[in-house]
Amino acid sequence: MSDTNALDTLIQALRGLPGVGVKSAQRMAFHLLQHDRPAAQFLSRALQQAADTVHHCERCHTFTQDAVCSTCLDERRDRSQLCVVETPADQSAMERTGAYKGLYFVLMGKLSPLDGVGPNDLGFKKLFDRACDGVVQEVILATNFTAEGEATAYVIAEGLKARGLRPTRLARGVPVGSELEYVDLGTIAHALVDRR
Amino acid sequence: MSDTNALDTLIQALRGLPGVGVKSAQRMAFHLLQHDRPAAQFLSRALQQAADTVHHCERCHTFTQDAVCSTCLDERRDRSQLCVVETPADQSAMERTGAYKGLYFVLMGKLSPLDGVGPNDLGFKKLFDRACDGVVQEVILATNFTAEGEATAYVIAEGLKARGLRPTRLARGVPVGSELEYVDLGTIAHALVDRR
Ligand SMILES: [Zn+2]
Ligand SMILES: [Zn+2]
Repeated sequence: MSDTNALDTLIQALRGLPGVGVKSAQRMAFHLLQHDRPAAQFLSRALQQAADTVHHCERCHTFTQDAVCSTCLDERRDRSQLCVVETPADQSAMERTGAYKGLYFVLMGKLSPLDGVGPNDLGFKKLFDRACDGVVQEVILATNFTAEGEATAYVIAEGLKARGLRPTRLARGVPVGSELEYVDLGTIAHALVDRR
Repeated sequence: MSDTNALDTLIQALRGLPGVGVKSAQRMAFHLLQHDRPAAQFLSRALQQAADTVHHCERCHTFTQDAVCSTCLDERRDRSQLCVVETPADQSAMERTGAYKGLYFVLMGKLSPLDGVGPNDLGFKKLFDRACDGVVQEVILATNFTAEGEATAYVIAEGLKARGLRPTRLARGVPVGSELEYVDLGTIAHALVDRR
């Protein structure tokens, strides 16, 4: 066996990535050390930089390196619309449709009782306060059309209705069971137009 | 859109890992930043440490942090046997069998003309010199039983035969614990030819 302290540590660390088992981690470590050390150095610096500087926008909760993200600060966005999505990737998918010009609230997750993720973890209180601030006229629920995404949308909708608001939901043009970031942009755009 | 310079850079850097596309990279970045920053810091340090300290054993070419790896230095190993494997992971698999007590030569790859990997990249000259050093009595070819692994074994065998040596190859055969009717026919045919 080779002397593999730093190598074993690297393989163990790579297994901290979601979806990476021991075989994949071995392949990744071998590839980086044998064929692409610059990529290893680049990834090392990118991880440190992101872990040190990326936090959550204090208004919409998405990832940003500033106190408030550029979307929330953008004066051209329609402040009367607030779109609720699960993740920054979902937000990116919405943006790429070019069909939405309002603001966002990014939950950074979804209700998942089995994983211990409840309303407090997703900032529902802050979302409800935001929805009632007098500026927001419409809340569009764009959580994923999965069981957990639907449950999340349902609980948010109930909370908003209790405050006299009537949220809309992306139309079911989005195939049931799929996740937004994998849906083609035209479908998302139609679902936005047909929101109910 | 969020302000994602450090985030975009991280996603781009994660795509430098083999088998990781943009969707996987987004999921990894989200997971690390949202749920496991210690894992991000740990991976960052492990990458830097490995890239800085891991190089190749000057005798067997496997990864090590020293000039010569602990296997090559181990006085209890049988110096008359030299096992040729493709990667450190293959070497580990051989070690875990507990059935081999000799030394190794780790090619750190396999012949792959389409990828520009030739005999010089795999250290064939050094392997042939080693095999002829008078200490080595048997060279066991344990490259993978894939098209490229077989081709690599063939070329090494030809080189050794030209020097008057007769290498051995791991037997091809029916995997232990498997039932004949589920084994592919090529494997059965090889097992029949290699019967003992
Ligand atoms: Zn924001
Ligand atoms: Zn060695």
